Amino acid sequence: MSSVLWKSVLVTGSSRGIGLQLVTELARSCNRPGIIIATARDPTTSTDLQELSKTYPGVHIVKLDVDSQQSISSALEEVQSIVGNKGLNCLINNAAIGFSMDLNTVTPEAMMKTFQTNSVSPLFVSKTFLPLLQTAAAQSSGMGIHRAAVINISSILGSVEWTWGESANFKSYAYRTSKAALNMLTRCLAVDLGSDGILCMSLHPGWVKTDMGGPHADLTVEESVSGMLSVLSGLTEYDHGGFKDYRGQNLPWL
Amino acid sequence: MSSVLWKSVLVTGSSRGIGLQLVTELARSCNRPGIIIATARDPTTSTDLQELSKTYPGVHIVKLDVDSQQSISSALEEVQSIVGNKGLNCLINNAAIGFSMDLNTVTPEAMMKTFQTNSVSPLFVSKTFLPLLQTAAAQSSGMGIHRAAVINISSILGSVEWTWGESANFKSYAYRTSKAALNMLTRCLAVDLGSDGILCMSLHPGWVKTDMGGPHADLTVEESVSGMLSVLSGLTEYDHGGFKDYRGQNLPWL
Repeated sequence: MSSVLWKSVLVTGSSRGIGLQLVTELARSCNRPGIIIATARDPTTSTDLQELSKTYPGVHIVKLDVDSQQSISSALEEVQSIVGNKGLNCLINNAAIGFSMDLNTVTPEAMMKTFQTNSVSPLFVSKTFLPLLQTAAAQSSGMGIHRAAVINISSILGSVEWTWGESANFKSYAYRTSKAALNMLTRCLAVDLGSDGILCMSLHPGWVKTDMGGPHADLTVEESVSGMLSVLSGLTEYDHGGFKDYRGQNLPWL
Repeated sequence: MSSVLWKSVLVTGSSRGIGLQLVTELARSCNRPGIIIATARDPTTSTDLQELSKTYPGVHIVKLDVDSQQSISSALEEVQSIVGNKGLNCLINNAAIGFSMDLNTVTPEAMMKTFQTNSVSPLFVSKTFLPLLQTAAAQSSGMGIHRAAVINISSILGSVEWTWGESANFKSYAYRTSKAALNMLTRCLAVDLGSDGILCMSLHPGWVKTDMGGPHADLTVEESVSGMLSVLSGLTEYDHGGFKDYRGQNLPWL
């Protein structure tokens, strides 16, 4: 991965799992971005994150509860002071929740909470940070993380066509519908932000051994994140509005 | 349309627009279903609906606020007493809201309200009425409205792939994401209810001249509903888990 490409990146939900690994691998890279902003709802609870910021001066920890507009706005001010007039090159909307709930156990409350965090919050985080992305985009050309990008960490579980046969064995009305909605959000944002030169895409991390993915998942978090960072470093205008997995394979929106 | 096929049908959101036209055309049909249940949040406000039930004894008006589990449960009791041991052949989840909101005007509240009515409520209406659908399904074979079906009135605006170029001109983050989620819901329900013999599908009514569609829409409500009822009457097991428009054309989930 040639991380010299991006000068600044912000990752939501980085206190554990895929988010923590994203900021960790970025920080350890020989050509790490000058500014890595690791956000979490309560960063004080993550000793890993605290250690990382002590070891690598370029890692900034910012408190951000993606479900609170007040928290998003406060984080914007803090990030603005960190990135200055260079703006922000890459926003990775990674914070998400997941429940395994079948038709018997699903509740309206679980559905609404999951839509809030997985579908609505990525929209308002992106909307609030848009001025910083636009600032970065105005200083470069082409499309990719060297300029400006919104990356939504989504899931193949959000693909309607794929929800059939064996692939439908994982039952979660809340998670699947929220990720289908997130994929639509990616596409709507791509339509609106393309003219600013801001690349928008959905990225499927694979089924990863995290607290959310469980111990029987296919991939270690290192395998998933290494793949995703490689994909991100190679993004061009042809990926705008698209959906890829951690190996760089195009996925159907279906 | 050979409506002799279905003995009973329930339509949500039938006080106006597509819902009102669905129950009206069903009631006027020479081979109308024996039981037509027209539900609305506040049926007393629709004089059209009141007139219809006076003219056609088979039309039953039931109060149902799809956003309230208490209201859904009360409606279930009432519908149970109407359909008796025959169960319910067809549930049409038609109630929906729509806002035209672009990136500048969209709010978290509008997003959440739209997810509630357009994506979450169809799940809990279907889940609550499932025993009545199962009762009907147990008395017949094959798949279609002669047996048992859940029809979600969705929209091509919920298709991610289609949200591009000219098709993306209609800006509504809330409506598009909620219909993408509804399409995923249809698919999840199809996976779970297929073994009971309950057909589940999404149906796109076209762009219709209603309060929601506006005066510049392509179709009159009569054209749309006439087409949809023709499609419904011809459904078979091949349509289970699918997405069609009012002309019967298969749509991509994309």
